[in-house]
Amino acid sequence: MSQVDFPNWMVEIQARVEKTLSRCLPGADIAPARLHAAMRYSVLGGGKRVRPLLAFAAGEVASADPARVEHAACAVELIHAYSLVHDDLPCMDDDSVRRGKPTTHMEYDEATALLVGDSLQSLAFAVLAEARLTDEPAAQFEMLALLARASGSRGMAGGQAIDFAAVGQQLTIEELEHMHIHKTGALIRAAVLLGASCGRLPPAEREALDRFGKCTGLLFQIVDDILDAEADTATLGKTAGKDATQNKPTYVSILGVTRAREMANELRAQALAALDPIGSRARRLAELSHYIVARQF
Amino acid sequence: MSQVDFPNWMVEIQARVEKTLSRCLPGADIAPARLHAAMRYSVLGGGKRVRPLLAFAAGEVASADPARVEHAACAVELIHAYSLVHDDLPCMDDDSVRRGKPTTHMEYDEATALLVGDSLQSLAFAVLAEARLTDEPAAQFEMLALLARASGSRGMAGGQAIDFAAVGQQLTIEELEHMHIHKTGALIRAAVLLGASCGRLPPAEREALDRFGKCTGLLFQIVDDILDAEADTATLGKTAGKDATQNKPTYVSILGVTRAREMANELRAQALAALDPIGSRARRLAELSHYIVARQF
Repeated sequence: MSQVDFPNWMVEIQARVEKTLSRCLPGADIAPARLHAAMRYSVLGGGKRVRPLLAFAAGEVASADPARVEHAACAVELIHAYSLVHDDLPCMDDDSVRRGKPTTHMEYDEATALLVGDSLQSLAFAVLAEARLTDEPAAQFEMLALLARASGSRGMAGGQAIDFAAVGQQLTIEELEHMHIHKTGALIRAAVLLGASCGRLPPAEREALDRFGKCTGLLFQIVDDILDAEADTATLGKTAGKDATQNKPTYVSILGVTRAREMANELRAQALAALDPIGSRARRLAELSHYIVARQF
Repeated sequence: MSQVDFPNWMVEIQARVEKTLSRCLPGADIAPARLHAAMRYSVLGGGKRVRPLLAFAAGEVASADPARVEHAACAVELIHAYSLVHDDLPCMDDDSVRRGKPTTHMEYDEATALLVGDSLQSLAFAVLAEARLTDEPAAQFEMLALLARASGSRGMAGGQAIDFAAVGQQLTIEELEHMHIHKTGALIRAAVLLGASCGRLPPAEREALDRFGKCTGLLFQIVDDILDAEADTATLGKTAGKDATQNKPTYVSILGVTRAREMANELRAQALAALDPIGSRARRLAELSHYIVARQF
């Protein structure tokens, strides 16, 4: 396990992910050049890379070769990037700023943004199919199926459909949780499990990681809701206060900020408790759950 | 090889594909129900299933088990269906009729249509990852990568980007061909190769199928262009004459109908010539190339 401290580890992994993503993405000089430039614009040079960080941290738990984990990490990040591009489109959230830059359809055009998202999704599966990620092919097929299910109508895209239908609605906290388990949680859980799948883990530890992944997915969303309510656009790198403007149910709108913060702390405690049986190999995952909360505290 | 005549074979395969697609798609009663209903609306009950037919016909050449081919065939059709849903969106072709029914965004809404397409793409890869399609895992990883590449920015989605950029432009016949090799050709070629990959083929026969797939992809597009120029909306099941209205370069606009028909006949002859070394096992593929042309002659 790496001995560097957390901030340095994070910077190191982020740089590695950036490099791998850049290598996976077709060059902006390859035809169709405008589409490829837009794909690179949408993926590179921004983002905290939380999902790749989780994949690498889970890979450490399973003693996975980082050269394998980087492909899984990038596949998840490509799915995440495509979802942001499509989510920002006028027919969805209609957002103009993302990661401190104009959103893809603002910088290019809507048709290009649509095709960027579509192409990034295909690329994610190409990356996951082309690399050798495990010694057992059956495990790699499971990884491909896991990412596909986490991305689709019973995962992330389904969560977005629930989110879209929820605008202006009064949701219970259970309904909100159901939405976020899909919209944000599915891909975060997939990031953790895919990273772990590149190595070997006894079933009990895999289950522990799965519990950690589920708590972390919700934790991440609660913190996002608090940030949207409290931070400004410059700090956030995306339009702040959008949830309230769009009349979207959030943890803050349902629980209030104080209770939402308490819930974040509770979820962090649950996430850490899930890691207990694993011990020190889970250090990076524990640090990441602190990092996710510390984005705002 | 099946002894039934071509029309009966086609009806039999189409029914089988419909059944498999229906089984792959989440039920309209499963949450998020509206998204799942829209996915089923977009995929089921229409379409000639040309790509699945090609996959089954190529599977026969390679003595593949049809129970394996049906998964590959459905994965390709799911990609095709997603591309139609996204292609019909207002920011792309802005079409209101498809397969004789309102397009998905007309029947539902734009956000749902966007998520339908996204979810169908994920589902295609889930189907291809979850079924056992070959005896050798390496071959199945290649199939997954092949479908991902054929769908993405250097395949179908890239072709749509070129198409979108070409509106109102004067293209040479070579540029038009380049566009269609990506937009339509990549997925048709993938259908043929994926069907064949479910069985076993000597490399020379696989190359012959690849040549057949490339010719057939272009053939299909030329016939499509002729139909768009000559048929009416009722016959076509989609808005006729759109290419001219949208000022899109087509084989008809560049070559005229007579020369486009001649070119279709030439391509069909090339497609059949590619099958020569294979002999009678390629009967269904040959019949399919006739069928593709006969749509209009």
